[in-house]
Amino acid sequence: MDIEPVDTDVRALIDAWLDAVRVRDVPRIMACYAPDVRAFDAVGKLQFRGRDAYGEHWQACMTMCNGTMIFEIDELEIAADASLALVHYVCRCGAVMEDGEEKSGWMRATVACSKASGRWLITHDHFSAPFDPETCNALFDRNA
Amino acid sequence: MDIEPVDTDVRALIDAWLDAVRVRDVPRIMACYAPDVRAFDAVGKLQFRGRDAYGEHWQACMTMCNGTMIFEIDELEIAADASLALVHYVCRCGAVMEDGEEKSGWMRATVACSKASGRWLITHDHFSAPFDPETCNALFDRNA
Repeated sequence: MDIEPVDTDVRALIDAWLDAVRVRDVPRIMACYAPDVRAFDAVGKLQFRGRDAYGEHWQACMTMCNGTMIFEIDELEIAADASLALVHYVCRCGAVMEDGEEKSGWMRATVACSKASGRWLITHDHFSAPFDPETCNALFDRNA
Repeated sequence: MDIEPVDTDVRALIDAWLDAVRVRDVPRIMACYAPDVRAFDAVGKLQFRGRDAYGEHWQACMTMCNGTMIFEIDELEIAADASLALVHYVCRCGAVMEDGEEKSGWMRATVACSKASGRWLITHDHFSAPFDPETCNALFDRNA
């Protein structure tokens, strides 16, 4: 009977994160994460441990990809228990550059959330694109 | 008070999966997954839905990478509630080929498990390597 309210709370956290990502507000993005977050991001390093290290990476990504943000999610699913929730979805992410060119590709995300002191926070996320095992190039097609 | 037994049960499932992977036993690997598993694998397609589709992909990967399996995991962490568990780790995976050449790289994994009818099964997994945003080449260094 607790499932629906938990799903609503977790979805509110994901939506707050999405809103902050779309307006490139790194402090608001980072406020969605637990201090001891462990992140497996799509680019750069194998892993990031802790909100400070992950926040520096977010800031660097925002600087590198500096057009109007594209972050559209689809096929989002939530599985939640009383204090642990798992979210996964596919997403089209990228940016519209100043010259109007759009650079985007399909990726996938797994996000884990925990409730502590009455508040849900993201404790782990994993963003990635699959790669072609022959060329080792990342693949960005929805139906690759 | 339930945390430790749950962690032990989840770890047993992960260990059963690892044993099956290391001996290339696809039916035993697939027996660890729920019928409606949703998988984000490191290679090939954006996602796989259902044990049958994912099993075909596992079989194709085993055929493609046909030496002695390398699958070493490190920094494994488990967060578990009564019926939902989250596991993440980094892993060195690849194979030793017939000519003795070793092909391996560091990747990362997120695995979600659910308990239904008294039994834990994997409902979602996500394996990946990060990529270099300049070249779109996958990165396999532990400290990339």
